[in-house]
Amino acid sequence: MPRKTPFNAASEPFREMGATLKTQLDFIFKPKSVAVIGASNNRQRWGHGTLQSVIRAGFRGNIYPIHPKEKVIQGFTAYASVLDVPGEIDLAVFIVNAEQTVKAMEECARKGVKGAVVITAGFAEIGNSGKEMQNAMVNIARRSGMRFVGPNCLGIWSSAVSLDCCFYKAPLAGPIAFVSQSGTLGEYLLEIALEKGYGFSKFISSGNQADLDVCDYLEYLSEDQDTKTIVLYLEGVRDGRRFLDISQKVIREKAIIMYKAGRTSAGMRAAMSHTASLAGNHELFEAACRQAGIIRSTNILEAFDVAEALAHQPLPRGNRVAVTSGGGGFCVTTADACAAYGLEVPELDSDTQRRILSLLHAYSPPPKNPVDMIARKGPMSHAEIIEILAGLDYIDGIIMTPPWGGFHRDTPAEFMKELIDSAERIAQVPQRFGKPIISAGAREYRKHPIYEILKKGEIPFFEGPDTCARAMQGLVQYARAREHARARG
Amino acid sequence: MPRKTPFNAASEPFREMGATLKTQLDFIFKPKSVAVIGASNNRQRWGHGTLQSVIRAGFRGNIYPIHPKEKVIQGFTAYASVLDVPGEIDLAVFIVNAEQTVKAMEECARKGVKGAVVITAGFAEIGNSGKEMQNAMVNIARRSGMRFVGPNCLGIWSSAVSLDCCFYKAPLAGPIAFVSQSGTLGEYLLEIALEKGYGFSKFISSGNQADLDVCDYLEYLSEDQDTKTIVLYLEGVRDGRRFLDISQKVIREKAIIMYKAGRTSAGMRAAMSHTASLAGNHELFEAACRQAGIIRSTNILEAFDVAEALAHQPLPRGNRVAVTSGGGGFCVTTADACAAYGLEVPELDSDTQRRILSLLHAYSPPPKNPVDMIARKGPMSHAEIIEILAGLDYIDGIIMTPPWGGFHRDTPAEFMKELIDSAERIAQVPQRFGKPIISAGAREYRKHPIYEILKKGEIPFFEGPDTCARAMQGLVQYARAREHARARG
Repeated sequence: MPRKTPFNAASEPFREMGATLKTQLDFIFKPKSVAVIGASNNRQRWGHGTLQSVIRAGFRGNIYPIHPKEKVIQGFTAYASVLDVPGEIDLAVFIVNAEQTVKAMEECARKGVKGAVVITAGFAEIGNSGKEMQNAMVNIARRSGMRFVGPNCLGIWSSAVSLDCCFYKAPLAGPIAFVSQSGTLGEYLLEIALEKGYGFSKFISSGNQADLDVCDYLEYLSEDQDTKTIVLYLEGVRDGRRFLDISQKVIREKAIIMYKAGRTSAGMRAAMSHTASLAGNHELFEAACRQAGIIRSTNILEAFDVAEALAHQPLPRGNRVAVTSGGGGFCVTTADACAAYGLEVPELDSDTQRRILSLLHAYSPPPKNPVDMIARKGPMSHAEIIEILAGLDYIDGIIMTPPWGGFHRDTPAEFMKELIDSAERIAQVPQRFGKPIISAGAREYRKHPIYEILKKGEIPFFEGPDTCARAMQGLVQYARAREHARARG
Repeated sequence: MPRKTPFNAASEPFREMGATLKTQLDFIFKPKSVAVIGASNNRQRWGHGTLQSVIRAGFRGNIYPIHPKEKVIQGFTAYASVLDVPGEIDLAVFIVNAEQTVKAMEECARKGVKGAVVITAGFAEIGNSGKEMQNAMVNIARRSGMRFVGPNCLGIWSSAVSLDCCFYKAPLAGPIAFVSQSGTLGEYLLEIALEKGYGFSKFISSGNQADLDVCDYLEYLSEDQDTKTIVLYLEGVRDGRRFLDISQKVIREKAIIMYKAGRTSAGMRAAMSHTASLAGNHELFEAACRQAGIIRSTNILEAFDVAEALAHQPLPRGNRVAVTSGGGGFCVTTADACAAYGLEVPELDSDTQRRILSLLHAYSPPPKNPVDMIARKGPMSHAEIIEILAGLDYIDGIIMTPPWGGFHRDTPAEFMKELIDSAERIAQVPQRFGKPIISAGAREYRKHPIYEILKKGEIPFFEGPDTCARAMQGLVQYARAREHARARG
């Protein structure tokens, strides 16, 4: 049975976050039941993979494959139409062709389906005939109160109910929400993020945004308990004013990191033929976003690194960083990178230098900042030095390499134990001192026992000095932006 | 028996590359026999690991552990002194303390040892007492004609004889030579490079450079058959004029990519306490390097990516790039990145667009460049489009994502075969057309069968659009620099 239309149908899109939008989108991101329209037993069909993803990622609600003829698909009872499904359906995922989508959506409206993800392509992006079908679909949705993602998208991931209708390998669950106007790039990036160990609360491939658009997602995510940080890949924004207004509100609580594509003429040309997005005046838009407090990224991979830091670490009060490593080269390159990103690496006062020197062997280089710990007296000195640095009122955050050494089979047990204890003390520093720590290490080190300890402390982990500094800059940027946004009220 | 001193002892360092320097350094990088002075059976000692590394990496020449008491170390006959070794010794590796090093070096001189790698620290970097010992060591070497690396370094790797005296895991053999003024950073970077699959001809941790310095290494590497590209991590240069003169000669044949540390005041302070390097006027030095044709990198990890491309791909004639992918988002972000790195992404002429369109389905986005291949007609279309692009006289290089799709267990055999054939055709394009191809893909894709094919074609492989564009820029930069260097004569 169709629910009552909760808004002024077809004329007025949602302008304010309210219980209504939240309720509507919860049906999409926290459904109790999912119908897969176009599910298939034929492994060559997209509908096979989509149902596979839903099952494999571990969705525990009801799953209803919809297919005109099959009785059982991948072990689940199949139905010819959503109208034949005995229970209620919160969410319908569409992977039939465009014509069939319109017809099936009518049936969904009659059934009272509450939300949809329309993966199907062949709508507005192919021209007038597609545009008509897209409008028809929007009208059905408006009439019935159904909201939908897409069309012409890759699907969604929602950690809240382990719902994956797009990826071969589901993302890890975690605090980053990612809204992407590109499906394949989104998939690609999530694959890299998975390798890096980053977790996601939501992935939303927004597609043609015929109904729900990036502004709706932002509103929804701003109150989403699972989301701490939002990454946007945008090729164009329909309503720039609304986007900025909503963003200003969102960043009072959560950071937004945006890669806006089409910042050059070649990029604009590509965006145009990709999603027919009019990139508009890029510089004006960027300036407005900066003013709104959105963190802009010009390197889409790096956007996730910054998001990872923002999702896990306390915000610094300023831009003053201590750099420390068990090796001089890392100290030098990180100090350079910090300066390049507008971070200060203040020289330590002489009293602090003396305190740190007492934890180092006599032949150590002077610990002015950066602090080269190559000749620390023992594993615990590592933690003690980090604590001294974190305790300084003129240090706002720390970039370090962790105490990796000494996990060979001949490492004495006492030494190993001290290393572990040291890492555990370091892992508590961000909480204890309210200051962020960013850590560096080759990816291979993620197999290292110390990494597990840092991970429990939510200390973000990056490969190179440059990325560490960029992530710290992101923390500084957001700390300032949030302060301004809250001051504005 | 000591060889005749081949140069004006102690006064005049080498100023020209000649047979002499090559002969001398071949004893270090292509030794037939290696003595490990300070080799140990005690797993807690550095000398244990060093000998382990030599054995494990597969050095096939004679290995002589030197230890005052032990008779057998790690299965090899040990000697109390190099003077007791029955055969000739080309190279001695030192990991005893500084005092013992001076004494053992005297013995090496008497024995006629030809080269040394002095890992031992505690020389000039600790002050006057160390400086005296360092001078003593230099005098011994000058008298006997022995040349040496270090002291206060991590050691060397040489692929020519699989000699590794520094790393727990030996690097892969390949065409990049890396000279690093930081040992631990060098080790760290090599670890990341190993993960990325990059291969090295030499790693030289240059340390205090008491005898051999970066200029000597550059001269030697310029004629080293195993080396195609040289990466330098420098904290300071003793003789800037000589460095620039040699570099200008080297880049007629091989690219030099340099990370010069200490480009900011914090970095300079760190470099000072790390290797006592006076960074000097960074901007002047950078300008001089640019003029000499050295490729500068401000991101040390990225330096290896650029080196990887330069070691394997033909040089482009200009900066005009075609971008192609099976997904619009990659096209957009790569086009943006290209523009940011000063590369042009020219719009394709209408005839070429028509030819490419015939290989795409009707609903494809217009292939103006970037070319989105999401709807290519079959796997072979991928190769055909790449060939069309490579054949254009206004395209100098290609950035692409490879034809990954379709290696699931249900992929039809014919489709899979066509994919492989397509990749093989693409792998031949750089050779056939004399134009570089740079490829993108998550690291996980290195397990993909298509990756193996690209690797045979030496097509470099990077994770993100930004790195692909940076690497292409590196090729363009070097092509120009080499042209200028050769024109200068």
